[in-house]
Amino acid sequence: MKKFYLTINVAALITILCFSMDTFAQKTEEINSKDLLDKYKSITEKIINSAMNDSEAYNRLGYMCDTYGHRLSGSESLNKALKWIHNEMLKDGLENVKSEDVMVPHWVRGNEHCELMEPRQSPMRILAQGGSIATPKEGISAPILVVNSYEELKEKADLAKGKIVVFNKPWVSYGVNVQFRSTGAIEAAKVGAVAVLIRAVTPHSMQNPHTGMMVYADSVPKIPLAAISTEDADMLERMYLRGQKPVVHIYMEAQTLPDALSYNVMGEIRGTEKPYEIIVLGGHSDSWDVGTGAHDDGGGCISTWHAVKLLKELGLKPKRTVRAVMFVNEENGVRGGKAYADAHKNENTVLMFEFDSGVFRPDNISYGGDEKILKYLQTFEPLFRQIDSIKIQKGGWGVDIGPLARQKNIPVMSLGTNDEGKYFWYHHTYTDTFDKIDRKELNKCIAAIALAIYIYSDMP
Amino acid sequence: MKKFYLTINVAALITILCFSMDTFAQKTEEINSKDLLDKYKSITEKIINSAMNDSEAYNRLGYMCDTYGHRLSGSESLNKALKWIHNEMLKDGLENVKSEDVMVPHWVRGNEHCELMEPRQSPMRILAQGGSIATPKEGISAPILVVNSYEELKEKADLAKGKIVVFNKPWVSYGVNVQFRSTGAIEAAKVGAVAVLIRAVTPHSMQNPHTGMMVYADSVPKIPLAAISTEDADMLERMYLRGQKPVVHIYMEAQTLPDALSYNVMGEIRGTEKPYEIIVLGGHSDSWDVGTGAHDDGGGCISTWHAVKLLKELGLKPKRTVRAVMFVNEENGVRGGKAYADAHKNENTVLMFEFDSGVFRPDNISYGGDEKILKYLQTFEPLFRQIDSIKIQKGGWGVDIGPLARQKNIPVMSLGTNDEGKYFWYHHTYTDTFDKIDRKELNKCIAAIALAIYIYSDMP
Repeated sequence: MKKFYLTINVAALITILCFSMDTFAQKTEEINSKDLLDKYKSITEKIINSAMNDSEAYNRLGYMCDTYGHRLSGSESLNKALKWIHNEMLKDGLENVKSEDVMVPHWVRGNEHCELMEPRQSPMRILAQGGSIATPKEGISAPILVVNSYEELKEKADLAKGKIVVFNKPWVSYGVNVQFRSTGAIEAAKVGAVAVLIRAVTPHSMQNPHTGMMVYADSVPKIPLAAISTEDADMLERMYLRGQKPVVHIYMEAQTLPDALSYNVMGEIRGTEKPYEIIVLGGHSDSWDVGTGAHDDGGGCISTWHAVKLLKELGLKPKRTVRAVMFVNEENGVRGGKAYADAHKNENTVLMFEFDSGVFRPDNISYGGDEKILKYLQTFEPLFRQIDSIKIQKGGWGVDIGPLARQKNIPVMSLGTNDEGKYFWYHHTYTDTFDKIDRKELNKCIAAIALAIYIYSDMP
Repeated sequence: MKKFYLTINVAALITILCFSMDTFAQKTEEINSKDLLDKYKSITEKIINSAMNDSEAYNRLGYMCDTYGHRLSGSESLNKALKWIHNEMLKDGLENVKSEDVMVPHWVRGNEHCELMEPRQSPMRILAQGGSIATPKEGISAPILVVNSYEELKEKADLAKGKIVVFNKPWVSYGVNVQFRSTGAIEAAKVGAVAVLIRAVTPHSMQNPHTGMMVYADSVPKIPLAAISTEDADMLERMYLRGQKPVVHIYMEAQTLPDALSYNVMGEIRGTEKPYEIIVLGGHSDSWDVGTGAHDDGGGCISTWHAVKLLKELGLKPKRTVRAVMFVNEENGVRGGKAYADAHKNENTVLMFEFDSGVFRPDNISYGGDEKILKYLQTFEPLFRQIDSIKIQKGGWGVDIGPLARQKNIPVMSLGTNDEGKYFWYHHTYTDTFDKIDRKELNKCIAAIALAIYIYSDMP
């Protein structure tokens, strides 16, 4: 019995001790959290007030989109816009403003048109996909085969020879639907098709085809690939299923010219304590050649650049160097991301942040790196909630930051936004224009980025 | 006091009597309502079951839109579609199927294009408005003046001479915004403008200009009028306000050819008891020359025609004659409505019903005529509620039924739908296509029309 009592007492003692230690740790953490939040409270208020009252970021995005137009890699309009960004960064007083050479792919659309020939004649809007070859000069006229999946294409392989294959999978998600744009020309060529039309990769087309990157394989013939609107894709499928034997004519001049010179443009604030520890944040300056890339990714460029500008204007001196980089050629080559990795591989880059999600309500700051740092960052969620209901979560990635971050295992961060399903309405179409940008949402994004970057740059 | 008592007693008696009479009337009405509802209960169920299980109406609308394309007055495609409707009505076993000659205006768009020339070169989508003249062969290149109202145009009259006036009033409502399409060319010509561009009349453009009818006045020079997208109108305004001095080039071949032969197509069920009392119901067969007029007003045609077909198939023999009329040329002339009025003015038309609100969820049956009949119709609201939350209310009108209804003071009726704000997304654009039609909503519309028309035709 004695032994029994002793056992109970020891167990009880351990329990009490553990409980006390837990409570102590929790208390300490709470005190630390409170101290940390207090430390950044007035800074947060300054950042939010200044960002939300700003109109320059919004006006600059509008000016850039309207004045220079699209910013396809290799275009004169892209380089004009980049020169303007460089000069505006100088005006902002950013340090080490630079335009670093990048040789970018130079694909051009040229003229293109598409017509329904049978059962009646009618023009259809068309957009060649980036990287596609042209049709022969006389165009391609052929009956169509409509399928909804690669499996269906394989089943109907015998019917595909000499046809224009129409991939008409209704919208599920970008991830699911984009495959026909990426590799549709390869799969269709394997079964003898002469060209491919894909249903615009969108839940809401309004007669707009969407463009984007596609690839070829050396093992099969290259055939032209273009998108048509969801309306026309559905119409072709209905006609096909009714046995109306639709015939379509496609004419495309698309071609890939020799690589062209363009630039990664960047500017920074040098860190006060650890200037050689570099935080990179950016978006991509290039867009497709339709619309003016307001959401994709003009907004990402302006937001990251203006987050740095905001810190500077508020006199918030980051301990580490904070560098805004406008990466070129995300859309069709990632040459900007690769060139940046090459040129800066010997620097000590401590964080790479990318914003390429469309300028909507900020929803999350996602971080991929040390779990302890993630936990530290999550301490500040209450401050981010003053901007909007922003979560700090695990994640974070970006196409442009990928090359260097992967190569050197650098922590990554990104801003995710809540587009209420609208991003892929505009994405890669004539509708991605400045009128779709909400000034308040843009300013909230800038505030969220500035706060995240400042806290990170200020870490012990 | 006695007198006082007497007074009270008489008053009380009157009150009691009145109350009893009210109660009696109410009771009688309730019994009558119950009888009436009972009488049409099983008929309502039959109509709803049959309509909701139907796919022919939906498939026919799709077939017509896809196969013939747009149905602009004067076009070959319109007359092909009308011939098809005529033949299908015969197949349905409708009586007195007829195509009555109507001479319609024959405006054609021809080629057209529009470019921003300064501060950069970029194509802009354009749609000439119906009735507009062409530009000279070399087109019109001119600086722009952007205004938001006729008042502002008057204030800035000195700046308008030689300019292309851009009316860019943001969306308020169709009623408010359509004025610039209708009379913008007159007001701009008064102050010396050389052409007019209007912001697409829509809350949601997605780079689609909208077309529609415009007018000229003999007192001022005729100048070309076209719409651009809301995106481009906003961009031009921003450039104008920044002092970027935008210059625009417009080329239009629009012209009005001699009137062309077309048809009002109709079919009917002869009334069993009062065949010479005629109920007319219809929509308009013509559309603009963009899109395929699925909502405006292919759906209205199919719905009214199939409401008649449904009564026939269910063996519901209306006491009065029920005639489905596919009116031609509602969009730019109302020649169909006028020709019908001329050809049928000597008939005893007892009701004219029009459906031209877009095929969305049925929301109301509106009636303009005798108040007692409205009250009688309202008795049946519980039956309509079995289709959807449909109100029976005062109102009812339609452009096509206007000429005869006004001339002979005929009661009117219409079906109103709840589009959740979407009708003017598609209206008069390339996006008004069959994929925007929901089969269930179409079938609900048919059920509502069939029930309303049958009850009316069966009135004592």
